[in-house]
Amino acid sequence: MNAAPGDATRAAAARLLQRCEELAAVSASADGIERVHLSPEHARVNAMAAQWLTAAGLSTWQDAAGNQWGRLEGAEPGLPALVLGSHLDTVPDAGRYDGILGVVTAIEVAARLAPDRAELPFALEVVAFGDEEGTRFGTALLGSRAVAGTWLEEWWDVADAAGTTLRQASSAFGLDPDRIGEAARRPEDLVGYLELHIEQGPQLEAAGRALGVVTSIAGARRFAGRVVGEARHAGGTPYGRRRDALVGASQVVLAVERLAVETGGIATVGRLQAHPGGVNVVPGLVEFSLDVRAEHDAARDDLVARVTASARETCAARGLSVELHETHSAPGVYCDAALTESVVAGIAATGDHDPVRLYSRAGHDAMAVAAVTPVAMIFVRCEDGISHHPAEDVTLEDVALGLVALEAAVRDVARRRSAAR
Amino acid sequence: MNAAPGDATRAAAARLLQRCEELAAVSASADGIERVHLSPEHARVNAMAAQWLTAAGLSTWQDAAGNQWGRLEGAEPGLPALVLGSHLDTVPDAGRYDGILGVVTAIEVAARLAPDRAELPFALEVVAFGDEEGTRFGTALLGSRAVAGTWLEEWWDVADAAGTTLRQASSAFGLDPDRIGEAARRPEDLVGYLELHIEQGPQLEAAGRALGVVTSIAGARRFAGRVVGEARHAGGTPYGRRRDALVGASQVVLAVERLAVETGGIATVGRLQAHPGGVNVVPGLVEFSLDVRAEHDAARDDLVARVTASARETCAARGLSVELHETHSAPGVYCDAALTESVVAGIAATGDHDPVRLYSRAGHDAMAVAAVTPVAMIFVRCEDGISHHPAEDVTLEDVALGLVALEAAVRDVARRRSAAR
Repeated sequence: MNAAPGDATRAAAARLLQRCEELAAVSASADGIERVHLSPEHARVNAMAAQWLTAAGLSTWQDAAGNQWGRLEGAEPGLPALVLGSHLDTVPDAGRYDGILGVVTAIEVAARLAPDRAELPFALEVVAFGDEEGTRFGTALLGSRAVAGTWLEEWWDVADAAGTTLRQASSAFGLDPDRIGEAARRPEDLVGYLELHIEQGPQLEAAGRALGVVTSIAGARRFAGRVVGEARHAGGTPYGRRRDALVGASQVVLAVERLAVETGGIATVGRLQAHPGGVNVVPGLVEFSLDVRAEHDAARDDLVARVTASARETCAARGLSVELHETHSAPGVYCDAALTESVVAGIAATGDHDPVRLYSRAGHDAMAVAAVTPVAMIFVRCEDGISHHPAEDVTLEDVALGLVALEAAVRDVARRRSAAR
Repeated sequence: MNAAPGDATRAAAARLLQRCEELAAVSASADGIERVHLSPEHARVNAMAAQWLTAAGLSTWQDAAGNQWGRLEGAEPGLPALVLGSHLDTVPDAGRYDGILGVVTAIEVAARLAPDRAELPFALEVVAFGDEEGTRFGTALLGSRAVAGTWLEEWWDVADAAGTTLRQASSAFGLDPDRIGEAARRPEDLVGYLELHIEQGPQLEAAGRALGVVTSIAGARRFAGRVVGEARHAGGTPYGRRRDALVGASQVVLAVERLAVETGGIATVGRLQAHPGGVNVVPGLVEFSLDVRAEHDAARDDLVARVTASARETCAARGLSVELHETHSAPGVYCDAALTESVVAGIAATGDHDPVRLYSRAGHDAMAVAAVTPVAMIFVRCEDGISHHPAEDVTLEDVALGLVALEAAVRDVARRRSAAR
């Protein structure tokens, strides 16, 4: 379906994989990859990206939210920018490619366009967002929401597991929270945003295609949940006297799966811990996270309502209370029709003239950026659909095809924009 | 049912409650009471107990396992000892009385007997065990098992949550692991062991009695459990591709409760945590604890077998593996008939001539000590049966009655022993 990439492209793809390895080595954990927002690891990978951007001929800066940027001026200085990018932060015990592949590919595409900059009817920018996953503060897309100008003041007081607020972490990182507004881009300064990302699902592999066109991105809602009961001695307390928060929370976990399957949505409890955590103590408190997605926002909100009602009923029957505090909500986003035509043209350059179209069940920076400029996305096949796991993998050939497609898509945007003038 | 204690006894009880408060102030946590084996807090409370023992006229020492002892010689030096005691370690976010009340009451009883030491046909010893709960290393009764001479070499390699082994922690505490055998007592050096403890259950309160006689102590078996699935992206992974360890573990938690209720046993999952713990990651691993008890060992072992079979079946159906590694096993123990007669005589001194007899669903140091000398126990009523919780409470009057009963029980053992000579 795809033409085999040439030797030069394969060599470039090998370099991209090498850069993914170099970034993977920057981790807060000795056992796996973990790189969270505003951490020392965040600063180190920004510096690495800045070095690669500079080598590619771009001017570089870190914005007020901690995102790393590079800019290649076009035919004349100060033109609106077409932005390519993704994120460099990770989940705990992460893979090597989620977000990262999009950043290193964007840098390579900029390097390839640099010799032709005098013909570009826009500036070309590359962005490496500092927080997409929300691993540290629960609230996701902090980097891209700052860029989109959709920052909420209340986020400053959100704290990480160690009790450090986002405001404190930003200051410690060397950023000035009072200048966060300077990270926001104006719509008139932007042409659009193109993001290449691994699929993080099994559909392209099942279809036998290297690349796919993203039609829309499902918006996640996230909650911090608590089930409150009463801690008691595990031996001395008969069942009739127990208010075991873990037994209630376990029923909630099972209901989340059942209701999601019933409604065709996706809901996940990814984090759960029982307190106080003594082997001989009936748990008095359980803290957990809830992540809810569906193809359309209405279906997702309906699923949230069903889960909430079920959890309340289940817990009330056991004398437990349950709280679900919303920590994140992103509306679903449709990719821009015109930019998506350029993505299709880009994939056509790899020999695939009828690419798979699919919606993204995972959230992406493009969702947030869509608030300020049109967005489109290319998905790259990943092995067995595995992501957010050390086994996350891509082939060198698919990376090469993604590089070809992203470069061709950018050239297509340039051609259409020049023709429209 | 009980005679009201006199003013002097009430004053002594007030002092015991004051000592419980002083011990409660020694905590690793600013938010609640947590005092684990071989911690700096352990060393501090041992020093406090030693000071009180010395003031009561006892000679003191800390043994090779970190237990604090005091000894009052009897009619002649070197007589076998009647030991009174309990433990000073706690669960996380503990109450003020579990174990502690037994230690401070034992010290007070020794102080009251000191003037009459020349008439005692035994030495009187007080012990404050350093680990009963097993909070730090999962393995419980470390202090009393060292004294009973039932120490297992394999325990040295058990590690706490920070990865510190018991061997390392012992050395850091100033103990010599190679001398652990010196903590073991010989049967011929002991007369018996009497332990006063809060009930940690609601039965005495329901019966309207301050004190109870313990007939036997149910033996707990404890397991460290793991459910292993596969961590994946929460958005991109459809339900058919998920191997969600938390959904499987939740089914196990519910089965544990159902099977325990069906068989009349008690089984508790007190500790549970999902990994890697990202809000948008399907959990690939869940670690949990399991504590199983029943009135008789055979019923308990049957419950363990049912839970194990159920967990295997449930997890296999979801493509998950489950492991249950036994970390602790204590056989159920029957209290000694003769010593229990002295406990009944002790409670009779409070005016209750037909005391409630009950078995202990909670484990106690007496279980371990029973391997080396006869044991008996007095239970003191606690409010609403709450234990292993900051709300754990006792009344001053009940503490006074417990003090009267324990002293009278010791005098009864002395009387019987002298009469038998």
